[in-house]
Amino acid sequence: MIELGANRYGKAAIHLVRVHRDRAGHRISDVTVAIALEGDFERSYTDGDNSLVIATDTMKNTAYAFAKDRLAGALEDYGRALAEHFVAFRQVDRATVSIRGHDWAAIDVAGAPARDAFVRGGEGTRVATVSATPGGTTVQAGVDDLVLLKTARSGFSGFPRDRYTTLPETDDRLMATRLSAIWRYGSPDLDADLTFAAIRATLLEVFADHDSPSVQASIWIIGREILRRHEEVDEVRMVLPNLHHWLADLTPFGLANDGEVYVSTTEPHGLIEATVRRGEDT
Amino acid sequence: MIELGANRYGKAAIHLVRVHRDRAGHRISDVTVAIALEGDFERSYTDGDNSLVIATDTMKNTAYAFAKDRLAGALEDYGRALAEHFVAFRQVDRATVSIRGHDWAAIDVAGAPARDAFVRGGEGTRVATVSATPGGTTVQAGVDDLVLLKTARSGFSGFPRDRYTTLPETDDRLMATRLSAIWRYGSPDLDADLTFAAIRATLLEVFADHDSPSVQASIWIIGREILRRHEEVDEVRMVLPNLHHWLADLTPFGLANDGEVYVSTTEPHGLIEATVRRGEDT
Amino acid sequence: MIELGANRYGKAAIHLVRVHRDRAGHRISDVTVAIALEGDFERSYTDGDNSLVIATDTMKNTAYAFAKDRLAGALEDYGRALAEHFVAFRQVDRATVSIRGHDWAAIDVAGAPARDAFVRGGEGTRVATVSATPGGTTVQAGVDDLVLLKTARSGFSGFPRDRYTTLPETDDRLMATRLSAIWRYGSPDLDADLTFAAIRATLLEVFADHDSPSVQASIWIIGREILRRHEEVDEVRMVLPNLHHWLADLTPFGLANDGEVYVSTTEPHGLIEATVRRGEDT
Amino acid sequence: MIELGANRYGKAAIHLVRVHRDRAGHRISDVTVAIALEGDFERSYTDGDNSLVIATDTMKNTAYAFAKDRLAGALEDYGRALAEHFVAFRQVDRATVSIRGHDWAAIDVAGAPARDAFVRGGEGTRVATVSATPGGTTVQAGVDDLVLLKTARSGFSGFPRDRYTTLPETDDRLMATRLSAIWRYGSPDLDADLTFAAIRATLLEVFADHDSPSVQASIWIIGREILRRHEEVDEVRMVLPNLHHWLADLTPFGLANDGEVYVSTTEPHGLIEATVRRGEDT
Repeated sequence: MIELGANRYGKAAIHLVRVHRDRAGHRISDVTVAIALEGDFERSYTDGDNSLVIATDTMKNTAYAFAKDRLAGALEDYGRALAEHFVAFRQVDRATVSIRGHDWAAIDVAGAPARDAFVRGGEGTRVATVSATPGGTTVQAGVDDLVLLKTARSGFSGFPRDRYTTLPETDDRLMATRLSAIWRYGSPDLDADLTFAAIRATLLEVFADHDSPSVQASIWIIGREILRRHEEVDEVRMVLPNLHHWLADLTPFGLANDGEVYVSTTEPHGLIEATVRRGEDT
Repeated sequence: MIELGANRYGKAAIHLVRVHRDRAGHRISDVTVAIALEGDFERSYTDGDNSLVIATDTMKNTAYAFAKDRLAGALEDYGRALAEHFVAFRQVDRATVSIRGHDWAAIDVAGAPARDAFVRGGEGTRVATVSATPGGTTVQAGVDDLVLLKTARSGFSGFPRDRYTTLPETDDRLMATRLSAIWRYGSPDLDADLTFAAIRATLLEVFADHDSPSVQASIWIIGREILRRHEEVDEVRMVLPNLHHWLADLTPFGLANDGEVYVSTTEPHGLIEATVRRGEDT
Repeated sequence: MIELGANRYGKAAIHLVRVHRDRAGHRISDVTVAIALEGDFERSYTDGDNSLVIATDTMKNTAYAFAKDRLAGALEDYGRALAEHFVAFRQVDRATVSIRGHDWAAIDVAGAPARDAFVRGGEGTRVATVSATPGGTTVQAGVDDLVLLKTARSGFSGFPRDRYTTLPETDDRLMATRLSAIWRYGSPDLDADLTFAAIRATLLEVFADHDSPSVQASIWIIGREILRRHEEVDEVRMVLPNLHHWLADLTPFGLANDGEVYVSTTEPHGLIEATVRRGEDT
Repeated sequence: MIELGANRYGKAAIHLVRVHRDRAGHRISDVTVAIALEGDFERSYTDGDNSLVIATDTMKNTAYAFAKDRLAGALEDYGRALAEHFVAFRQVDRATVSIRGHDWAAIDVAGAPARDAFVRGGEGTRVATVSATPGGTTVQAGVDDLVLLKTARSGFSGFPRDRYTTLPETDDRLMATRLSAIWRYGSPDLDADLTFAAIRATLLEVFADHDSPSVQASIWIIGREILRRHEEVDEVRMVLPNLHHWLADLTPFGLANDGEVYVSTTEPHGLIEATVRRGEDT
């Protein structure tokens, strides 16, 4: 017997811009949206029966239509409107809406922000994922591609050595990463913009301010502090590549290199991923 | 109480080439390897205690060293050697080795293959993932970025319509995708090269030869046939973007377009993912 | 005084597929087209006067429309039809049409090619550039992203050494590149498909068959042979990154490495570019 | 007769980080460098004679070594040191050093900048190109990948219409671009950081503040103003894709779309490139 296992379908890479033409100045929401549905779709696979299949083109249209009236504030609110719209179809058990928000700042003109001209920024990409089921809605938020560097207070030592180990121990290395973090809120009802900004600030501040004996420990220290300071958060998952910066060997040229010149590499890289969460007793 | 949840760490993007200098002609294995470990690593996060942390640099070195003697045949055999090496450490509960194999063909010189010169091909990338635990080893194989197109025998109709539905029904569309498929073998002991080639041929042949009422149904038809023809396979997971090709509207120019000219798009795209597996009764 | 210097404008990344539904089986032309115009457009810059500006949207429409009737054979013929269409506008001094052709092969079903299903290949991308002026039309053709590797008959020695030189001389290294070559035909009137295939075969064959004392010399040897064998070609320009493959140091692990295991890198890379052409006396 | 035409060679993608460990706080220079040489290298092509070929590996080493002492301030000064080093070799007629500078900001910790932790920004990439010949040195500077958007004061009308024209005229569209600009200084002796910042501010301000009848006119208006305000600049070259944002058609859903919801696209795109320079009479 052959059967269908886990499955989902949807529309990805729906890229749209919502312009709010306020009198005081324009505001823009620039988002890339992905929508995925799970539910009673087995017969579309096994029998070619599309009678319950909401077309992915319809999902795209819905994203455009909802952008008109429901994309004014936080990404999470727009995502929730979409997810709850789709989960209202009886054949849908779970609707997941993932949004990447592209950051724009008003251009500075002689010390004041332009009212209708923008430059795209790039300190990471804000992400939001809303998952709606008939039983309720879960909101996750986070940041992707946040590139960070510590030039001090990072080391790696005390690890076991075997035949294949050549890495020297160090108590002073560069630590560079392209951080991805996504955290889950205990309730979908919150001021998502304010909360996001506060958690992002915590993340950056703790990254800057801690001593790192390993990338693993950094994840723990940052994640724990996010949970301590932000009671809205139930769990945070982080993925950190370790983008190695090797001290350039300048001795052939008769030069010392006292933590001055580093070869920047992206491959190969370490890759550390972990979840930090509230335990049972919370 | 705050605690550590799921976690793993390792080295990614280890790119190496193994040259086999046979008398009859050179052969090359060109691979990108990722290694990830799970196990007794909690204290590296919570206490900065690296005493059980196999350095990711050591993983990289091991991949190079093993390439000398264990990367002669199938990617899966090399991956298994690495995975079983790492799971032998007492602190490791699971070692996962993922390999991407880059395809090279001997260059044709006057009708004969060159003995030491190669051109890189591109009909998808072969992938293999070997996961070793103290209880045993699981081998998965597959293909990624396999770009396929059907110019006939593909339609999409019978789907529900709501306020946001504008897509017309069609019994004749282009179906284009960048297919990813990965299948799990029931046993790790097999001729992985031969089996891979046979399954890949089935996949392509069924893609070419079936009538598609939807991408969902195509996944089912292809997956079911792989399971039917290849008893080594327990389950196959496929992810298919639907890379829409829209009929160009040539009527403003006084031209008909009878399935001749299509606008090729990548965004937005449908995205369908499903697993087809042997059921309980098998 | 401030003035306008060199300028051109056009439409890029027009991606379309032309399906030829022949009785014996379908054929497809999958192309990405860029069109650029030079001419009497100065006032569009300096005065905001668009009265001579052929809209880039019109260029796109023209590419779709011409795909119906003029994209049956060689890319070069389609490019020429477009370029000569645009240069016929009196304000246009030069129309340049650049085309990338994406390669598809009929899928093999039980030993025979499928009639309407295709798999995308990847031994480089065919490119064509047609430039039309009132005085005549020039056709260039070539190949991009052709990834090649020699496992023997490649060295690099005899170079000067200074304070900053650490590279050892070698008479046996891997030579890997992602070759780009574009050649100019003496006349636009030729069987462009046949000629392209022949030149590409020469390029590959000479790459496989020559001894390389440097990437520079390889460019010369390949380019010279293309000119010798193909009198249609007036000049060929090649750009070759030197994608270094370093012998992995296995001595810490007690292993020899006799040209067996290489670390594959993409950055930093050498980059060599040169033109080989017929001289004045030809 | 077959001969060598234009040629150059060098090393690209040399990525290094220079850390300045000042007492008040660390500063970092994160650069990707490319070096290319032209000169008396013909025999390396035609005869395989490497006796004058400065190895690209030596170029890389030199970039690392010079990073220690000459990469403290502006990219342009480091580039000039490298370019003038290489042009001092008698076989070199021109040394070109191109640098991309990656922008980092000190992380904010409780209102103050961290002394040794950084976040990578992304409002475009600063670029510098220094070209040295025995006759003198030329410095160019610029910005790449600067993504800009105007939500008002942009239109496109008055263009000619032919059989293939369907684009409506508009006096109100979104104008989005990924701008690349590079300008040439009249003299290499200048405070390159200060000058860069001032020109970049002009570019952004004029972009924000002008009325655009076309991308062509925007290039002219911005370029002219850079030349007017910054006498150090002799010429500026700009390349602007027109990243179309199409008004989403919401009428099928019974909704108006009064400049509110736009479909964001990257392909196909317009592409406009032009140079604005000081004329003969300046």
